[in-house]
Amino acid sequence: MTQMQKAIKGITTKEICEVAEYENYDPEWIRNEVACGRIVIPKNINHLNFNIRGIGNGLKTKINANIGTSPKHCNPDEELKKLQTAIKYGADSVMDLSTAGDIDRILKSIIDNSSVMVGTVPVYNVMTQLIRKNKELSDMKPDDLFLEIEKQAKMGVDFMTLHCGVTQTSISFLENDERVLGIVSRGGSFIKSWMLATGSENPLYEQYDRVLDICEKYDVTISLGDGLRPGACNDATDRAQVAELLILGELVEKAHKRGVQVMVEGPGHVPLDQIEINIKLMKKICNNAPFYVLGPLVTDIAPGYDHIVGAIGGAIAAAHGADFLCYVTPAEHLCLPTIDDVREGVISSKIAAHCGDFVKNVKGARNTDYNMSHARRELNWENMFKYAIEPELPRTRKQLSESARENYCSMCGFLCAIKIDRGLL
Amino acid sequence: MTQMQKAIKGITTKEICEVAEYENYDPEWIRNEVACGRIVIPKNINHLNFNIRGIGNGLKTKINANIGTSPKHCNPDEELKKLQTAIKYGADSVMDLSTAGDIDRILKSIIDNSSVMVGTVPVYNVMTQLIRKNKELSDMKPDDLFLEIEKQAKMGVDFMTLHCGVTQTSISFLENDERVLGIVSRGGSFIKSWMLATGSENPLYEQYDRVLDICEKYDVTISLGDGLRPGACNDATDRAQVAELLILGELVEKAHKRGVQVMVEGPGHVPLDQIEINIKLMKKICNNAPFYVLGPLVTDIAPGYDHIVGAIGGAIAAAHGADFLCYVTPAEHLCLPTIDDVREGVISSKIAAHCGDFVKNVKGARNTDYNMSHARRELNWENMFKYAIEPELPRTRKQLSESARENYCSMCGFLCAIKIDRGLL
Repeated sequence: MTQMQKAIKGITTKEICEVAEYENYDPEWIRNEVACGRIVIPKNINHLNFNIRGIGNGLKTKINANIGTSPKHCNPDEELKKLQTAIKYGADSVMDLSTAGDIDRILKSIIDNSSVMVGTVPVYNVMTQLIRKNKELSDMKPDDLFLEIEKQAKMGVDFMTLHCGVTQTSISFLENDERVLGIVSRGGSFIKSWMLATGSENPLYEQYDRVLDICEKYDVTISLGDGLRPGACNDATDRAQVAELLILGELVEKAHKRGVQVMVEGPGHVPLDQIEINIKLMKKICNNAPFYVLGPLVTDIAPGYDHIVGAIGGAIAAAHGADFLCYVTPAEHLCLPTIDDVREGVISSKIAAHCGDFVKNVKGARNTDYNMSHARRELNWENMFKYAIEPELPRTRKQLSESARENYCSMCGFLCAIKIDRGLL
Repeated sequence: MTQMQKAIKGITTKEICEVAEYENYDPEWIRNEVACGRIVIPKNINHLNFNIRGIGNGLKTKINANIGTSPKHCNPDEELKKLQTAIKYGADSVMDLSTAGDIDRILKSIIDNSSVMVGTVPVYNVMTQLIRKNKELSDMKPDDLFLEIEKQAKMGVDFMTLHCGVTQTSISFLENDERVLGIVSRGGSFIKSWMLATGSENPLYEQYDRVLDICEKYDVTISLGDGLRPGACNDATDRAQVAELLILGELVEKAHKRGVQVMVEGPGHVPLDQIEINIKLMKKICNNAPFYVLGPLVTDIAPGYDHIVGAIGGAIAAAHGADFLCYVTPAEHLCLPTIDDVREGVISSKIAAHCGDFVKNVKGARNTDYNMSHARRELNWENMFKYAIEPELPRTRKQLSESARENYCSMCGFLCAIKIDRGLL
């Protein structure tokens, strides 16, 4: 049985207890939220020994780091280092998006070495294998998709992005709405081009029950992909995006009826003033399923600094109810992220998640800010480092500054506002 | 006559024309906004040969970079390099906050070398001179303040932070409201401790007409400092902060009646969901004077990464009507910023300003995003660099990647969503 099926039956699983303890909630409350589909606990029955986390209503906003090889940069050991870096700086999950090398083996080593949940996008391997066999993308057989999903489910993948909402209906709305950037989802563009070439409906939609069968069997949490998400602020919240969302809402309901855990993915590139409506619309349409957003990026024009742009959008999204943020690294739009990019991306995303948690008043979030501010008042640097979201860098900077041995910093020197205010000058 | 006095008389100055051309507005519209005090054009009559910029309603959100020596790090040449770095990456103004070395000489060299407007906080030099003379801060004579303001006005400073709103009335609200971090403004803590020690009213408030006399004479734009701004999210939007704002509102009106240009400074540390109300309250209370915010920082717990925290707050503030953002660098709360910090701070702040301008639909802002997205669709990398907020880093990263000579990037390799969507695979 899935976590959701057990929760519906009134069973408080040990996973529910682990989530309840981590989040400082009563297990019974968590159980009810899982039963209603407002919280998911991604944990494949074949994935053992990792830190169980819940995603959804009332919980700390979680963050995901994407790693994995690409045809232009394939170094599996480096991806394992990225895994460790992501975990060290606070990622709650990683997604292995490998599209080069021995993909099954890379995924297995990531699952084996990860202390956090692992997600994938199975269609990537399907595409990769087609290319390797010198086939056209349109040569894909629907069974290729389901076999790959089942293979990865068996391997222990905890959640999978599946682009089930790219349908003849949703893509029809692309025709009469002008996008500057078309489709920017790899899975979405692949499914759409296969549909156009074959004239067929998306197998992940048409045979959604097969998806549910597999995900039920292994308790894989479905992450309903937004294949038509906007890739430009100009394209945000257009009819195609919303049409796909409506279909995702139907698919959430079908999954919930089967007791299959499901979350919904969201954009993408979204101007700052459209984030709140996107989240509220999604939550309403999708029965309050957990919302997993990529960024969002509130401007298109900062390549090299998209971790900052993503932190702006992610903080606003989290504050308005997004539950799960996919990180964006400084490499976005430019190249495969390096290990340093992974670190920067995770820290930026953690900042965004925390700023949201402060507003949502997630348990404990405000205490940390209070404790930090109190430490500042006391000029207590050890406590400042203790409460910092990332303590290494601030400690190093203080130590390397001319005020290393002072209780004030080198910005104001002894003309420190706190010292003046406290009469300590 | 000041820019405002001339504007009220119907004179369209060459400075108004320069602003109108830069912002792509009709000069007559700018003149009217200056006359009403909704736009300021900081330009001291003694400061020649720099790029004139307007700040306020309808205009591009401007950004300021703080530079200057500190008692723990005094290297005037380095500050000049910071000046050039700030300008190179897009700062619209710099503030010289020097508190060490030959302060007058440093300020003069910054004014002489700056192609952007220059601001100061005159009370810093007053404090520094007291300390140098082995005096107590309470030994300050009101004339010390006015002499310093006049000296700097004569030198050509375009705008000055003056903490006129720290009054017996506003500080009285500190007593019955619990702050974790007290006062974090250097000027504010100094004025307050002087008032407590002497039992006197703040001279900048009591003799505000003297302030206006000097600022009128040299057309110095007053930047009404928020000496009681919160330095912790816990302390945001408390009674003391709002009490000071009410006084600043009265002082804005007095300045406007004299035809003296004025803007208002705002916090500080503010949770994400309090930014909008802070800006709307300020605009209402202060006759829609331009609003200059420091950050705001939406969490206290990310020392080392406060440029990211400031970008989150700054973007939201700009979107809701803030006109001028003071940058926050990665060194905030830790040490005096380095040249690298200045670069990071300016770029982060520019990103925030642009995200706000996109929402405010400032002239031209959305075109850049559109053009960037169009370049992405065309896989036209030269145009991507052309429309980037900072082109050096993205160009370098692309050139150093394994896809340096490809029209796709090394993240997806040939499995590029755009290529698939356009049938180019």
